[in-house]
Amino acid sequence: MRYWKDCWGVNSMYYARVFITLKKSIADPQGNAIKEALLSMKYDGVEDVRMGKLIELKLENPTREEAEENLKDMCEKLLANTVIEDYSYEILEV
Amino acid sequence: MRYWKDCWGVNSMYYARVFITLKKSIADPQGNAIKEALLSMKYDGVEDVRMGKLIELKLENPTREEAEENLKDMCEKLLANTVIEDYSYEILEV
Amino acid sequence: MRYWKDCWGVNSMYYARVFITLKKSIADPQGNAIKEALLSMKYDGVEDVRMGKLIELKLENPTREEAEENLKDMCEKLLANTVIEDYSYEILEV
Amino acid sequence: MRYWKDCWGVNSMYYARVFITLKKSIADPQGNAIKEALLSMKYDGVEDVRMGKLIELKLENPTREEAEENLKDMCEKLLANTVIEDYSYEILEV
Repeated sequence: MRYWKDCWGVNSMYYARVFITLKKSIADPQGNAIKEALLSMKYDGVEDVRMGKLIELKLENPTREEAEENLKDMCEKLLANTVIEDYSYEILEV
Repeated sequence: MRYWKDCWGVNSMYYARVFITLKKSIADPQGNAIKEALLSMKYDGVEDVRMGKLIELKLENPTREEAEENLKDMCEKLLANTVIEDYSYEILEV
Repeated sequence: MRYWKDCWGVNSMYYARVFITLKKSIADPQGNAIKEALLSMKYDGVEDVRMGKLIELKLENPTREEAEENLKDMCEKLLANTVIEDYSYEILEV
Repeated sequence: MRYWKDCWGVNSMYYARVFITLKKSIADPQGNAIKEALLSMKYDGVEDVRMGKLIELKLENPTREEAEENLKDMCEKLLANTVIEDYSYEILEV
């Protein structure tokens, strides 16, 4: 199967989720606002809230390795500000 | 173990991630901007990009069931606008 | 001055601010969270909070009219989702 | 008029807009994505794009001075992360 895809240039579709969060050391006012709001609504168990970004992508690439390599590259170059943000991702073949 | 926690009111800590995305039927200009930018940077395999929110919570609750119930409630009442957004979540005991 | 600019293709620099807000009819959970948080911090005068996006642009265009026309176009085509969002903008010549 | 308001505790309504932007020294991936997207759509005059937050508030306060003082306080304590963000605001009496 992979053999044929490689020969014929058939790509697979990958669904990826990128999670971008402020680094732990950086204060997160939006997260705090949500935390305060939840506490004022009597959700007493809320210890901490952090707000981040979720970016969902559909990628058509020959292999999972290539999809993953591209994704890492995109995070570093466009999606995340690595000075103040951390990122992680998940890839799912569909 | 659970027995003691129940008796003594010891709570467990749960780490939850809430994913909030615009409903499929709603156009996502920020996602489109990212898609166009990625295509212009020669990531040709990018088929679609959708931008969403990621909310990370630390919850202290007696049981996982209660944590989950609270979380669903928070999404409906505060975190998501269910007219234009979908939500889902993951809970992890830590 | 304008004469020379027109003749010689010299562009002016414009600084623009685009304000994108959810339509009044659409609930704004992030704004509500901020409102609740502010009330819980004893800012009793807070009646309403709405969260929006601010996009700042530097544009190099021959005339203010062209800058404005482009800007309106960008809002409609890329920056705002006009089904759920309103937009407005300000242009400043610099 | 002001006399009566002071005597009788009648508040005025203020409409405020808070502009929160990443500090100039901090890279803005979302702004860059929008810039690249606009350039790829042939808006050649786009020199720079920065993405920020717009927070609109309705405040009921006795005086404009108090509204402004509260607003500055809210920015420092909840709305902005002053390590990485700048803020400014406008107040309008309505």
